[in-house]
Amino acid sequence: MSLEEAKKIAAYRAVDEFVRNDQIVGIGSGSTVIYAVERLAEKVHKEKINVICIPTSFQARQLIIGNGLKLSELEMHPEIDVVIDGADECDENLTLIKGGGGCLLQEKIVASCSKKMVVVADYTKDSKTLGQQYKKGIPIEVVPMAYIPIRNKIQNLFGGKLQLRMAVAKAGPCITDNGNFILDWHFPTGDHDWTKIGTEIGMIPGVVETGLFVKMAEKAFFGQSDGTVKEKSS
Amino acid sequence: MSLEEAKKIAAYRAVDEFVRNDQIVGIGSGSTVIYAVERLAEKVHKEKINVICIPTSFQARQLIIGNGLKLSELEMHPEIDVVIDGADECDENLTLIKGGGGCLLQEKIVASCSKKMVVVADYTKDSKTLGQQYKKGIPIEVVPMAYIPIRNKIQNLFGGKLQLRMAVAKAGPCITDNGNFILDWHFPTGDHDWTKIGTEIGMIPGVVETGLFVKMAEKAFFGQSDGTVKEKSS
Repeated sequence: MSLEEAKKIAAYRAVDEFVRNDQIVGIGSGSTVIYAVERLAEKVHKEKINVICIPTSFQARQLIIGNGLKLSELEMHPEIDVVIDGADECDENLTLIKGGGGCLLQEKIVASCSKKMVVVADYTKDSKTLGQQYKKGIPIEVVPMAYIPIRNKIQNLFGGKLQLRMAVAKAGPCITDNGNFILDWHFPTGDHDWTKIGTEIGMIPGVVETGLFVKMAEKAFFGQSDGTVKEKSS
Repeated sequence: MSLEEAKKIAAYRAVDEFVRNDQIVGIGSGSTVIYAVERLAEKVHKEKINVICIPTSFQARQLIIGNGLKLSELEMHPEIDVVIDGADECDENLTLIKGGGGCLLQEKIVASCSKKMVVVADYTKDSKTLGQQYKKGIPIEVVPMAYIPIRNKIQNLFGGKLQLRMAVAKAGPCITDNGNFILDWHFPTGDHDWTKIGTEIGMIPGVVETGLFVKMAEKAFFGQSDGTVKEKSS
């Protein structure tokens, strides 16, 4: 079974288990969420369930519109029932690295407004300890003027190395949907207290958000190469 | 002595006591900082001291340029010797409310990169407990899409009332120099653990920065109506 098939079976399972009639549903970003929206559209158009969708990115917004689903926003619906989102990596405590696609800020805002967060991914995102699978570091969204002092502070506090993420489709740095820069933190291997580290980094002035999602997800579905779906719960 | 004179004597005292030759100096924002830059320019042009200035806002940048001072930024000079900035209110522990002028984010970034933060103000900013003098609430800079859920969360957590700051020179909300909204939090009166509250609010996804400056200032100068300058130290 291909990686794409693995993403699809995880996404379908999550939608079938967690989405109910008359819910407000957060729509995550990334390649696996595409399948979740596909399955959600089937349920809405065939089973006639009623859901209102809140996007976590421009991509999510386009998926919602493109699949004929009801689009809303946090201003009208500040309380979400469930958000279905991908992850770059998910450890045994359901601590996540997110933001490989650069949408971590809106993803975390939506997750923080949601009663439940469900992760959908293929088996390559499943790990015991962060860093085992995902090698690109923890994305940290920062105000552009502060990227150098923030880089220095995090390196001094916790070690490792931070790299300014560069754009590909244009010269210079990658700019997020909110106009910020991303520093990818290649953290030292080993055990870490992610709650503490997330708070300390999050409180550095100029840090807008980190791609560390600690104690936010309550369930994760990983599509396996053999066609089964592995589950992890918090 | 007028309020303007009170601002001026505080600003002059701070520059004379804290700025030395060959320093990197952070330039705050607001009506009192204008006098600090005026005094700094005198020292640079007459006493020929050498300083490099890092702005905390568009206004500060223009003051630096307009007074013929050397302008730099955090990318070149991530470590600042001293920042001289105003405050909307300063309590007995030198906890500050800042952001009445909407520049709290860049002001906090620069202060966090500075070895020392010195506050300059007139006597109307001096209080025992926050909220005694400044009645417009604590400014909280937020990502626009999240302003309603953040408002609800803070009201539920800590009480009080949050108001979206509206623009005057245009229709709709006030937009900060970084493209965000400001919620002004009219907090309940009484004693508060500002360290704890600042961290809890700061960690809500979508909160970019709060106007609470806790344990950042080490000295404050308040110009008095009788022409003297009152000092407070942390």
